Amino acid sequence: MNQYHRISANRLQDGDIDYLALAADGVRGLSPYLPGKPIEELERETGLPADRIVKLASNETPLPPNPRVVEAIVRELPQLTRYPDGSGHRVKRKLRERLGLDPAGITLGNGSNDLLAMIAQAFLAPGRNAVYSQYAFAVYACATRAAGAEGREIAARGWGNDLDAMARAVDADTRVVFLANPNNPTGTWFERGALEDFLARVPARTLVVLDEAYIEYADDPALPDGLLQLPRHPNLVVCRSLCKAYGLAGLRVGYAASSPQIAAILDRVRQPFNVNVLAQAAACAALDDPAYLEEGRRVNRAGLAQLREGLGRLGLAWIPSRTNFVTVDCGRPAGPVYSALLDAGVIVRPLAGYGMPDHLRISVGTQAENARLLAALGRILTTPGPGIAP
Amino acid sequence: MNQYHRISANRLQDGDIDYLALAADGVRGLSPYLPGKPIEELERETGLPADRIVKLASNETPLPPNPRVVEAIVRELPQLTRYPDGSGHRVKRKLRERLGLDPAGITLGNGSNDLLAMIAQAFLAPGRNAVYSQYAFAVYACATRAAGAEGREIAARGWGNDLDAMARAVDADTRVVFLANPNNPTGTWFERGALEDFLARVPARTLVVLDEAYIEYADDPALPDGLLQLPRHPNLVVCRSLCKAYGLAGLRVGYAASSPQIAAILDRVRQPFNVNVLAQAAACAALDDPAYLEEGRRVNRAGLAQLREGLGRLGLAWIPSRTNFVTVDCGRPAGPVYSALLDAGVIVRPLAGYGMPDHLRISVGTQAENARLLAALGRILTTPGPGIAP
Repeated sequence: MNQYHRISANRLQDGDIDYLALAADGVRGLSPYLPGKPIEELERETGLPADRIVKLASNETPLPPNPRVVEAIVRELPQLTRYPDGSGHRVKRKLRERLGLDPAGITLGNGSNDLLAMIAQAFLAPGRNAVYSQYAFAVYACATRAAGAEGREIAARGWGNDLDAMARAVDADTRVVFLANPNNPTGTWFERGALEDFLARVPARTLVVLDEAYIEYADDPALPDGLLQLPRHPNLVVCRSLCKAYGLAGLRVGYAASSPQIAAILDRVRQPFNVNVLAQAAACAALDDPAYLEEGRRVNRAGLAQLREGLGRLGLAWIPSRTNFVTVDCGRPAGPVYSALLDAGVIVRPLAGYGMPDHLRISVGTQAENARLLAALGRILTTPGPGIAP
Repeated sequence: MNQYHRISANRLQDGDIDYLALAADGVRGLSPYLPGKPIEELERETGLPADRIVKLASNETPLPPNPRVVEAIVRELPQLTRYPDGSGHRVKRKLRERLGLDPAGITLGNGSNDLLAMIAQAFLAPGRNAVYSQYAFAVYACATRAAGAEGREIAARGWGNDLDAMARAVDADTRVVFLANPNNPTGTWFERGALEDFLARVPARTLVVLDEAYIEYADDPALPDGLLQLPRHPNLVVCRSLCKAYGLAGLRVGYAASSPQIAAILDRVRQPFNVNVLAQAAACAALDDPAYLEEGRRVNRAGLAQLREGLGRLGLAWIPSRTNFVTVDCGRPAGPVYSALLDAGVIVRPLAGYGMPDHLRISVGTQAENARLLAALGRILTTPGPGIAP
């Protein structure tokens, strides 16, 4: 291996050609997605041991991994030298069994990010546009731009999707509307009637992509179940994720439910082995265990109540949420608060990139993690420091 | 869950709108990639038990999974509720340690398919073109079309890349040339001098994507190591895979090595969590174990010799190969031979989709698997049946 030494001399020649100028139009306006800071990274940066770090930054479940999922993965290990089943047969069968979905209308994704990217690649292009809300998941705008299409960001109403304004923004060149219910990163939601009205207003030539990544946490019968709208709306694509309430963030599994016709189109741009063998095995086991889901919901309800109560005591306002996170208004620039929390070993999510410089998104953790966050936040907000005092 | 029953009524409405007509231009010409038939699928179709089925269709390693990789995955299981490290820090550090690569020039992919798709999405678009060879990996054409660009397929020479003709096909709108060394699905290769001449001829504004998915098997010092060309060619992107010789097909890990400038552009279109937690852990362990790689090479050398000898005895010709597969000329339409092999529980790869209707691609298996294939092939070719007799 010593023939290689350090293959980095090409840095020297980087200046010769500007490859970004040669990139596809849409790509020049893109920046990479900024994920929540991984525990490992904070460990490297601060020297804090991993077990003293609390991560409430990526809306992961605070439960330990589902033991049934772990077992299923271990059972699948002998298969890891073999390509995954590109058709996702077993996962689709499980989705039919559990949710009554038609397998011909299911598309599996390497997380729902992958599904959103496939939809954009299949239906967007220069000269077309996508409609989405202000304060919507960053991937809608990224995927739209990467496809070279115009992104129409519609001003939010009460931090959430203004469905009326979004319907009005749809024109003949709108191929996709991205909706999220509940919405990330704000936690807001809309009710059944609002979705039905919206679907009735959007022409069938425009795909309505309903992102329900957090729906399992919604815990409120007023929120519609997008799957039930599928039979009446051939332009509807419901995206869901097993990364949140099902606890598979590390394994990246999402699914889209749509008409078989749209699923067949997405299959043309899908990478044939996008969901790996262990992820498929894990997905089947996770879908088979409603008890884990129920326990996650229970812990989330308790955690939300704990956070609301604690934030209220600190005099902080938050956006009402039907998810597993709370988006808090710090009443001052949130950047220094975020940094001070990092110093205290607590990772939350700053939202300046979403145009919400005073807000922090805090995922619901275990009772102990929530308490740790609240205590650190209390100390930070009452100890005036550079840039933190109100 | 019984509210769902079967959500498939939308099939009835499928006829209303032709969504394919509304898809992006490039997507309309695409068909989904056809992978090798999974063992599980043949099991479902024929009722043959899985342990009686031999799969030599997807160029997977015939070795059992690497025990060190298995251990690394099991150690990582407690992390599966957490998002992967989107930066792939540990894998990149390991690639630096093992191959001397500059981490800033590394892009990780969900298999090298993902890397090829990122390159196409970042640099191709309508009005641009990509050059690749006849009989090249199908994903080059798919990714090119999906980006709406023109694909220039250059006639092969001796079943392999005609580098001279490919260099001549490059024009001002050529943003990408896809080269494979060795080539899949034919097994052909080119030598160091040919690559150097080619790189000297292609202008710096055109990316040369050198797909070395099979390089670890090449076992012939005449083949160039693309990584060593990186310092002198800022337009070179070398794609490699851990799915073949490293035995991680099920986990989907590939990497591209390029200038940091190009890596930064690919990072804009990369899905932030494209390589999952278990795949990252597995990749680190696999890169750390040259002994597994060496054992794979040894078994492959022996298997190639066994297949050549056996095919020769059957009077069959094959294309010389520097890979872990042999592409065999059946001397008659290969479709019926493929089907008869399936009936015998042996899965190989038909190449009609590649314009090679008389050829079958046979992956090197264990000694017993190779013997099983040769015996079945012998029986089939000497027992005249419908469409099989020469």
